[in-house]
Amino acid sequence: MLLLKSSSMFTVEVISVGNELLNGRIANTNLQWLGGRIYSLGGWIRRAVIVPDVLTEIVSTIREAVNRKPDLIITTGGLGPTYDDRTLEGVALAINVELEECEEALEMIKTRLEELFKMGVIDSPDLTESRRKMARLPKGSKPLANYVGTAPGVLIEVNKTKIACLPGVPAEMKDMFDRYIAPLISKEEIEVVEVNFVIEDLPEAILAPEIEKLAHKYPEFYIKSHPKGFKGKSVVEVQVKGRGERCKEIVEEVLLELESSLKKLGARFYKQNKNKG
Amino acid sequence: MLLLKSSSMFTVEVISVGNELLNGRIANTNLQWLGGRIYSLGGWIRRAVIVPDVLTEIVSTIREAVNRKPDLIITTGGLGPTYDDRTLEGVALAINVELEECEEALEMIKTRLEELFKMGVIDSPDLTESRRKMARLPKGSKPLANYVGTAPGVLIEVNKTKIACLPGVPAEMKDMFDRYIAPLISKEEIEVVEVNFVIEDLPEAILAPEIEKLAHKYPEFYIKSHPKGFKGKSVVEVQVKGRGERCKEIVEEVLLELESSLKKLGARFYKQNKNKG
Repeated sequence: MLLLKSSSMFTVEVISVGNELLNGRIANTNLQWLGGRIYSLGGWIRRAVIVPDVLTEIVSTIREAVNRKPDLIITTGGLGPTYDDRTLEGVALAINVELEECEEALEMIKTRLEELFKMGVIDSPDLTESRRKMARLPKGSKPLANYVGTAPGVLIEVNKTKIACLPGVPAEMKDMFDRYIAPLISKEEIEVVEVNFVIEDLPEAILAPEIEKLAHKYPEFYIKSHPKGFKGKSVVEVQVKGRGERCKEIVEEVLLELESSLKKLGARFYKQNKNKG
Repeated sequence: MLLLKSSSMFTVEVISVGNELLNGRIANTNLQWLGGRIYSLGGWIRRAVIVPDVLTEIVSTIREAVNRKPDLIITTGGLGPTYDDRTLEGVALAINVELEECEEALEMIKTRLEELFKMGVIDSPDLTESRRKMARLPKGSKPLANYVGTAPGVLIEVNKTKIACLPGVPAEMKDMFDRYIAPLISKEEIEVVEVNFVIEDLPEAILAPEIEKLAHKYPEFYIKSHPKGFKGKSVVEVQVKGRGERCKEIVEEVLLELESSLKKLGARFYKQNKNKG
């Protein structure tokens, strides 16, 4: 993937907020999920940053991302009711707007509290100070209703860059992304074709020039080798991944060329098909 | 964890290089592992950035990290023999030094190729152009021998910030970190105590003020609630994590106070012990 052009593709930056992502507690599976979804919508993540629940770090990270002018910045985490949920305060400071209570967001929270109370999930629908805090949004924000949890998401625009603030709980984040954010990237899924080769007796270094040739020839495709270590013999996985109208055809072309090179080099290989779309 | 002071703690930034971390292929488990190790060595990751295999992104990310003056920058990935392994080129450009063939690194590569050849893992120990590329390091680097794979790591210092470039293959990265990088952070593991509560009928918003009180009282500890969604009732996990000489004692103190607040609020909870160290 040599010529990933930000000029022609919808560019996304992701900012993940949370100590738990930096102290070994959890892996950032939200980022992985977003990466796959954004790819299949025709966009790409140009950069992802993970910061702790420290306001100065959140502010500087958002400010830097805004300055790089991506089409979209997605933050995950830090929207909840606790003292260390400070993402919206960070966004407000970064883009120089006030934080103010949003009537629409407050209504969303009240509605969810009533629903959860009726379902017996919470003991009281009272709008405590902590819950009310979740309605304090950067001025000019559009609140995004949360159909899984309680905290509303946020959509705001600054200098043609959209900023979407989504919850950190995966189920809430995914629902909100698919509902409100995916359509901003594309109205429909793009066809994605991915084929993975496992190559069993050809070290990556020998394979490298062949991969490079193909990657230059098909710059709009991911053609990449992933060394998998040595298990008696060296094991390398080669990924060929493309999207768009002619992608199936082109992937077939790439595969034929790769197979022919590999045969010349005397490698054993087998395909793992992962077709999507 | 309100007062994570960068002034007193060993500060690390992690830069992960690889398209596969941004297009949904894999989760960044290297970052998770490093986070846990660095925490138990007494340091903290202040920021982590993930960039694709795009030279300009690698260069700007490293340059920005150097300007923030952490004690250590760790890069993972992009040291291999293929055309898109460009981390060292990125480091050289970012800190304004030349890339040059390092005799010591070349010897390391030759030694490993001979070993792997004798083990029958590779068909030829020949120093191909692709393999030779792995010995081109930023001028002034100390190469780090790779006892698992082939590509040497790199250690270089700029303005009192150490930059360690480690492979992306997890087994290689972990071995190299423990061998060369961990001792730069601390000569010994620090005692870490972590206790997790699962709280089953108290929503995070009600819990929030109690957690906040404790977090303020014990600023050097992680005391954080993690909402786990609604399963009939709301489920929240509270993590209490500390390190250092008196950590066991202090964690016990925190737990007693937390238990007493929870009882007053009528919550059901149970402990999950994760003691280490």
